[in-house]
Amino acid sequence: MQNQAQTKPASVTTGPIMGSNKIYVAAPGREDITVPFREVALHPSAQEPPLPLYDTSGPYTAAGALIDLDAGLPKPRASWVATRGFTSLAGRLVQPADNGFATKDLLVPPCPARHEIHAGQDASLVTQFEYARAGIITEEMIYVAHRENLGRAKAAQGATACLADGESFGASIPSFVTPEFVRSEIAAGRAIIPANINHPELEPMIIGRNFLVKINANIGNSAVTSSAAEEVEKLVWAIRWGADTVMDLSTGRNIHNIRGWILRNSPVPIGTVPIYQALEKVHGDASKLDWEVFKDTLVEQAEQGVDYFTIHAGVRLAHIPLTAKRVTGIVSRGGSIMAQWCLSHHRESFLYEHFSEICDIMRKYDVSFSLGDGLRPGSNADANDAAQFAELETLGELTQIAWSKGCQVMIEGPGHVPMHKIKANMDKQLATCGEAPFYTLGPLTTDIAPGYDHITSAIGAAMIGWFGTAMLCYVTPKEHLGLPNREDVKTGVITYKLAAHAADLAKGHPSARLRDDAISRARFEFRWEDQFNLGLDPDTARAFHDETLPKEAHKTAHFCSMCGPKFCSMKISHDIRDEAARRAGLEEKSAAFNEGGQKIRVPLLDDSKS
Amino acid sequence: MQNQAQTKPASVTTGPIMGSNKIYVAAPGREDITVPFREVALHPSAQEPPLPLYDTSGPYTAAGALIDLDAGLPKPRASWVATRGFTSLAGRLVQPADNGFATKDLLVPPCPARHEIHAGQDASLVTQFEYARAGIITEEMIYVAHRENLGRAKAAQGATACLADGESFGASIPSFVTPEFVRSEIAAGRAIIPANINHPELEPMIIGRNFLVKINANIGNSAVTSSAAEEVEKLVWAIRWGADTVMDLSTGRNIHNIRGWILRNSPVPIGTVPIYQALEKVHGDASKLDWEVFKDTLVEQAEQGVDYFTIHAGVRLAHIPLTAKRVTGIVSRGGSIMAQWCLSHHRESFLYEHFSEICDIMRKYDVSFSLGDGLRPGSNADANDAAQFAELETLGELTQIAWSKGCQVMIEGPGHVPMHKIKANMDKQLATCGEAPFYTLGPLTTDIAPGYDHITSAIGAAMIGWFGTAMLCYVTPKEHLGLPNREDVKTGVITYKLAAHAADLAKGHPSARLRDDAISRARFEFRWEDQFNLGLDPDTARAFHDETLPKEAHKTAHFCSMCGPKFCSMKISHDIRDEAARRAGLEEKSAAFNEGGQKIRVPLLDDSKS
Repeated sequence: MQNQAQTKPASVTTGPIMGSNKIYVAAPGREDITVPFREVALHPSAQEPPLPLYDTSGPYTAAGALIDLDAGLPKPRASWVATRGFTSLAGRLVQPADNGFATKDLLVPPCPARHEIHAGQDASLVTQFEYARAGIITEEMIYVAHRENLGRAKAAQGATACLADGESFGASIPSFVTPEFVRSEIAAGRAIIPANINHPELEPMIIGRNFLVKINANIGNSAVTSSAAEEVEKLVWAIRWGADTVMDLSTGRNIHNIRGWILRNSPVPIGTVPIYQALEKVHGDASKLDWEVFKDTLVEQAEQGVDYFTIHAGVRLAHIPLTAKRVTGIVSRGGSIMAQWCLSHHRESFLYEHFSEICDIMRKYDVSFSLGDGLRPGSNADANDAAQFAELETLGELTQIAWSKGCQVMIEGPGHVPMHKIKANMDKQLATCGEAPFYTLGPLTTDIAPGYDHITSAIGAAMIGWFGTAMLCYVTPKEHLGLPNREDVKTGVITYKLAAHAADLAKGHPSARLRDDAISRARFEFRWEDQFNLGLDPDTARAFHDETLPKEAHKTAHFCSMCGPKFCSMKISHDIRDEAARRAGLEEKSAAFNEGGQKIRVPLLDDSKS
Repeated sequence: MQNQAQTKPASVTTGPIMGSNKIYVAAPGREDITVPFREVALHPSAQEPPLPLYDTSGPYTAAGALIDLDAGLPKPRASWVATRGFTSLAGRLVQPADNGFATKDLLVPPCPARHEIHAGQDASLVTQFEYARAGIITEEMIYVAHRENLGRAKAAQGATACLADGESFGASIPSFVTPEFVRSEIAAGRAIIPANINHPELEPMIIGRNFLVKINANIGNSAVTSSAAEEVEKLVWAIRWGADTVMDLSTGRNIHNIRGWILRNSPVPIGTVPIYQALEKVHGDASKLDWEVFKDTLVEQAEQGVDYFTIHAGVRLAHIPLTAKRVTGIVSRGGSIMAQWCLSHHRESFLYEHFSEICDIMRKYDVSFSLGDGLRPGSNADANDAAQFAELETLGELTQIAWSKGCQVMIEGPGHVPMHKIKANMDKQLATCGEAPFYTLGPLTTDIAPGYDHITSAIGAAMIGWFGTAMLCYVTPKEHLGLPNREDVKTGVITYKLAAHAADLAKGHPSARLRDDAISRARFEFRWEDQFNLGLDPDTARAFHDETLPKEAHKTAHFCSMCGPKFCSMKISHDIRDEAARRAGLEEKSAAFNEGGQKIRVPLLDDSKS
């Protein structure tokens, strides 16, 4: 059990993703709002322009990026937030409990990056939801609209046809996303832009079922292992491969200071589960939790700039007996903490009772709600049971309260659910929670594959994403077994990117298939480098190819190691097309020659074989 | 490019799968028909009997197994086949072309195992289909019924309720599989038992949508790399992890002799694509193929004992122009070979024209048809297009012919298909092909993840398996990039096992959830060893766990490295249950004491915290 503090993160992974070039493209009409993409340049023989891809990786992947973790990232949102009339605060004093009472050598030093703390006022607009309801389009809305369009300045030709090809289950995905569409979706509660006013380093993104499906990666130390340096690198690593948001689930010592390092260096929204830290502050004794320590933790984290909080306010005292007959009881940490608190005091959850005050705090900084599913099923046997759905009903009530308080809201979902019970989850969530975005963990479609639960859950994730879930929380191969390492994090992220993309395709998202078609053309034309670079993980694709055909010459070979040169179906397909073209020419001639229309059989390929 | 011959397979992987014990259980009323299972013994604290699991691994995983590859496996079917009045043949003479003209040091020697060759007669019953239609229950049918029931002697209690929990899309899965049910399904053409009368080493299995979903693993050398020793070990390795059938897709030299080694040592059905070998015999020039060389290859392979042939007879001359506008043309090797032949001769496929004679040959040995989908889509863009569905219509016609000739038939399917187009494939196949079993490759639900196509395809495979596909052909991480190595084969097999199982669960297969529930109980009760052993890959699960908590003591720890002891939700759940039980006792007492019914609030957990 190592838990020694590191002085500070030494270095993180930087440099372009193989085959990609980071670009910043200004939003139409707003030269000051530049949105990052990465472009994949294709082989000249393709005669195609570079393909722009959605890019979550932040400044770290820019060519020649100079990253100074001490200074933190540039602050694209600083000037936007500065105009909104927020109050500057001295900020809450950091307490020894915030870092788990770590001292001296065990204390991770705070991130020295400059951080001004702001808070909204009661009488003025603060949250993206409030701006949206007031009919005001924020810079964040303009930013995400351009981002969702992959930099397109207008609707792509054929986008409507492409959309018509999907089945969106009631989602209304436009062929082109306008800032006004973003505003209207946020105002309706159907989408959120998690964007704490104290997180100016953020590159805004949107979560909602009428937008691209997003994924979240969890990082965090634990009581057993991990360090600060590893956590920041995990963030950078996770976003490099495509994590749209990152949840910091740290527990134990130094979590305040580690969180500071993460936030000052994160271009993506950071989510947390404040009850974890609150529990640390009461030395791990759930019964000692109370509203004061929790409230203080909310303020602490909101001032640091956390973009969304998982709040398990739906675990009510009356729900707990519903879990008694379950095969796997309560499997959410936050849910079990709250259940323990409720039972030990035999009273209603203080999160539920103080929900309105929680809203007031979160609104003040525009921290979005991620209403936790503390009673999610931990096994197929417990899926869609009374406990799970009772909590979901409560989350629906809480959503209305949070909206009435001006807060942005998404809803967390399961968990472990066999395929035939997945759609009911989505349908019930939409109906119960007023179409607030759904954010699910998987779900895992079977319990029998420990070591492969990124896959058991990718099946469920792709399906529920298709049905309407807006963000998918990744699962790594270590789920149920241990802490994910660097490779596990990457595997989890890539697996979820492909699941989210499969969902986008099936929904008929107008820009989703562009990438599939580009890679398919590259495949058919033996543009190996293009195939690698257009994939989700160019490094692995190239490495796998090189295992059997390492030579550089094979990167232009018109076959691969699977079938070899003689059996390559794609090569044969090309031969067939060439022959068909020749035949068309010949038959035209022979038709002209032979007016009787007699069919000439010419074994054309016989003499053209190589 | 290494293609040097090995003298013979040196050794293969043997020994029990971790935590499992191989058993053979006699079918009810037939002591002579013993079916293999593997039992997982659970920790005594579970107070549960050992859980029997379906086992594909053959004699290799029996404790103390003595495997002699030269002698081949025991022949459970020899005595059954012996009573059926088949003719003994001297057999076709092996030709130099059968082994790609390999000589001397380059020639892999034939497997010396004794192999008698039989053939059925025109006037008597030969195939399982013919027996089934005649109302006769074969030993193979008894065997697979017992196997599908996981050794249960009668319907499990609660099986009906469990079944009712699924959504089977019209499949009729009984709560208990009887030999008569097997017979009726085969007679209806809804299921097949691929079982060449010349493959007595086979442990029979059944493929049909009213049975457990099966998976196939492909092995095979290629023109670029691989050797005989590797191929036999690949078979043993693939079935160790759960491959229900194995296709030998070898090309190049020595394929006859390698196939001999594989068949004599295979307890699972072996499938091949005879056109590959036929093409080798004409030196790779598709235009030189003809009926005679193809027919000779069918006889050659049928005599060796191949259990099913992929026959691309649905690629007709008229279909080829339908592929002209495709993004990825024709991606099936067999399909492209036949398309090339048709175009070069500008005439109808000789497979189509001679289909009736193909049936006669295959019937004679009970080689099952796997009607190939030579025009399957190779990209999402090409999914469900005119070429694909035109071929499927032809496969429907051919199915009727094959049935009329007494043959067993299954139908191959795609490929690359986005999620929203998957169900249409299944529905159309059922309608077009008279409910003959569907056997699909994935399908891959997006094209953008080279290196992860076991996962892009597991999503589609789980879904199409749920919708009714009877067997799923695995895809490995190397798909599109290179030849799978040992680890890739294992990853592909485990990935497809979990996809098939997810499908069984969703269909409501009565025995599927037993394993999920057992592992979930083990998880909740911190029986770590049981959790590993009940999983699809105990080695990996244990290794992952040990990465963070290597000590033996942690195998009984009531927490894991993910949350650590303080935050373990399952531990808290147990505390909650204990408290709830205590409370129930206390409240009973207090209710007796306090007749006014006043509620007593006792913070019970406060004094019980550890």
